[in-house]
Amino acid sequence: MTGRAVALSAVAGANRGALRRHNLGTVLRAIHLAGPISRAELTDLTGLNRSTIGDLAARLGSLGLVREVGATDRGAPGRPSILLECSPDGASVLAVDITVKRLRMARVGLGGQVLRRHEVPLTDRHRSPGEVGRLLREGADLLRPRDVGSVGVGVGVAVPGIVRPTDGRVHAAPNLGWRDVPLGSLAATALAAPVTVGNDADLGAWAEHLRGAGTHAGNLVFVAADIGVGGGVIVAGSLLRGHRGFAGEIGHIPVNPAGRPCRCGATGCWETEIGLPALARAAQRAGATGLPELLALAGVEPERVRQALQEPTHWLAVGLATLVAAYDPEVIILGGVLPQWWEVSRVEIVDAVAGTLAGRAGPARLCVPVLGADATLMGAAETAFSTLLADPEGCLASHPAELGGTVSVHAAPVLLPSGA
Amino acid sequence: MTGRAVALSAVAGANRGALRRHNLGTVLRAIHLAGPISRAELTDLTGLNRSTIGDLAARLGSLGLVREVGATDRGAPGRPSILLECSPDGASVLAVDITVKRLRMARVGLGGQVLRRHEVPLTDRHRSPGEVGRLLREGADLLRPRDVGSVGVGVGVAVPGIVRPTDGRVHAAPNLGWRDVPLGSLAATALAAPVTVGNDADLGAWAEHLRGAGTHAGNLVFVAADIGVGGGVIVAGSLLRGHRGFAGEIGHIPVNPAGRPCRCGATGCWETEIGLPALARAAQRAGATGLPELLALAGVEPERVRQALQEPTHWLAVGLATLVAAYDPEVIILGGVLPQWWEVSRVEIVDAVAGTLAGRAGPARLCVPVLGADATLMGAAETAFSTLLADPEGCLASHPAELGGTVSVHAAPVLLPSGA
Repeated sequence: MTGRAVALSAVAGANRGALRRHNLGTVLRAIHLAGPISRAELTDLTGLNRSTIGDLAARLGSLGLVREVGATDRGAPGRPSILLECSPDGASVLAVDITVKRLRMARVGLGGQVLRRHEVPLTDRHRSPGEVGRLLREGADLLRPRDVGSVGVGVGVAVPGIVRPTDGRVHAAPNLGWRDVPLGSLAATALAAPVTVGNDADLGAWAEHLRGAGTHAGNLVFVAADIGVGGGVIVAGSLLRGHRGFAGEIGHIPVNPAGRPCRCGATGCWETEIGLPALARAAQRAGATGLPELLALAGVEPERVRQALQEPTHWLAVGLATLVAAYDPEVIILGGVLPQWWEVSRVEIVDAVAGTLAGRAGPARLCVPVLGADATLMGAAETAFSTLLADPEGCLASHPAELGGTVSVHAAPVLLPSGA
Repeated sequence: MTGRAVALSAVAGANRGALRRHNLGTVLRAIHLAGPISRAELTDLTGLNRSTIGDLAARLGSLGLVREVGATDRGAPGRPSILLECSPDGASVLAVDITVKRLRMARVGLGGQVLRRHEVPLTDRHRSPGEVGRLLREGADLLRPRDVGSVGVGVGVAVPGIVRPTDGRVHAAPNLGWRDVPLGSLAATALAAPVTVGNDADLGAWAEHLRGAGTHAGNLVFVAADIGVGGGVIVAGSLLRGHRGFAGEIGHIPVNPAGRPCRCGATGCWETEIGLPALARAAQRAGATGLPELLALAGVEPERVRQALQEPTHWLAVGLATLVAAYDPEVIILGGVLPQWWEVSRVEIVDAVAGTLAGRAGPARLCVPVLGADATLMGAAETAFSTLLADPEGCLASHPAELGGTVSVHAAPVLLPSGA
């Protein structure tokens, strides 16, 4: 109640400048996510009138963020539309995905295009926070915005751990061996740029919601299965965070009371049954050296592969049924290593989930990420764009810079609450 | 994105009348939930300025909804405050809680006071939707607003089932034996009044969030355990609904693969392990005739009772650990029959949850409902007040009536006081 009242008074007290700032960000966000797009479509999408759209688009053009692209006939009669898209010389961000085995980085342009990539393996020797900081700096140097023709407005980092949203402190990332690592400030220092840190599964969920398998789903779960299993949950169009930002820790749902000890100290957590080590054991029981060899057999001996994965498939279904009961998502997106598994055991997985749900209120649609292995990286990019999208003029006016460059970024105060 | 833009344009286009309407509702909501309250506290709580608060409070007074109460010295120096509270002659609602064994009804005044109650047992013979409709009409007649000195503005109904929010259709309420029952329209016809229907656990969660154990918790779970187990989940201050309104079906989280068949058709659902039938079996194993006899022993032989509940306590903990992993709530409120169990096995429950979480990110605080057995009923009342709180003048001006329509709502013509 208090929240609503305060939100109202903020709206009531907002001046025309704040409103225009919000609208400018709204139009830029629409072009960023849906471009190339006509002014008429922008009018429909944003609810703003044609002349306002025209003014705002012109302003975004003069800021160098948006440009017109050639007339396109969309099959409608009359003269073809001029479409708007994000300018390739406009803003860009540095996106970082820290996984157990790899450090993946990309410069991503406004509009969502990957402009350049850089990837290095992470061995035990390179997995310390200090070493990751050094690798980040090296990678960022190779992916400087000026080398790829756009202005850097921020850095987004994905990490397989529990992250405090306010400052990017990693409470725990067990598979990296990290505990209480100030990753946000560490990366900001290494890169001399503003940094946003998020949980990998949260960012995967967010990217798939904005640009992937869940663009029309306000309620979805993204399952990121690797050595551990993480979850990103979108609820009514927003990321579910919980009280301390730890919601969606679905890898630690207890599914098998007779199961193995989990590295968290508990027994039979979902990730002990469907994570990579469990899949490797299943592969070995079927006579393969490991999961890659087993999956390589899928084209030749699919039945043998399915048999080998029968027990993990059962536990996958138990966990998915739990997600349906807990969140009632429209879509569950199977990320990480799950797409390969899905490809070979699709029928078995769907049957097992239906069996576990036993005909209760229809299950969610299961699918794999549209963005593939880039889902998490793209989610990191989207969080890094958020300051620019909230206030394009303010963000650019504060002279952003990355990596010793000429500009630095500060978020302007956001007067209008989102969703107001 | 579209949603935000549309919401913004709605705000941008809102006239002073709409803003004032919203503010009038905001102030009434604050007095309803936090009264008796001073004008100065209202200023703090709502962010509105003193003179606006004064105008709005005067208007609420002239509508008969709010009154001043005697000066109270709150320990501060200076002259004591005049406090505002909801008028006992103001609006009221009819709240209904349909459980498997009982139909509970109450007339609840604005401000949250229960003015009068009525309760009838529900036997197998009385549990059909038509029969419940008849009992509702009888009960509503006994709880007419004019008999208790206030004006009825709506009806809220809680039901232990999956409810479509738009029209109150009950998709399934297995323990009532209901499937696809149009309870919303059935009750509206029986009572000749606007009716809002909600899931019992959702409404319990909502009431505890507004007035109970979770007033400061934006993220909480309310566990309603009876024959079945339901869940109401508050996420960032809003009720979690999911794609089809089925989120929080926590009774059907699969916890025990070696467990019993659930009435839903699946195996080992949480409610098969902690619902009343499981507790009755545990009681019988300990030599008691049933759960009531077992619990009656708690004062005399607490250790025997704890022993008897040992296995259910284990499964209670497994389910609670799942809730922590899924939602990261600040508080988990143990409703339904759980408070009695909590009273005798509190230490064991806390230990079992800690054991299941194995030291991972701290567990939620466990507690019992502050509103006790009335949580669900009060939640039903709160949903029934929502129309009035959204637009007090509009709601009263639309001449609502309950049960035969003899009561019309406002005595005086609604004229805006000068200066408003």
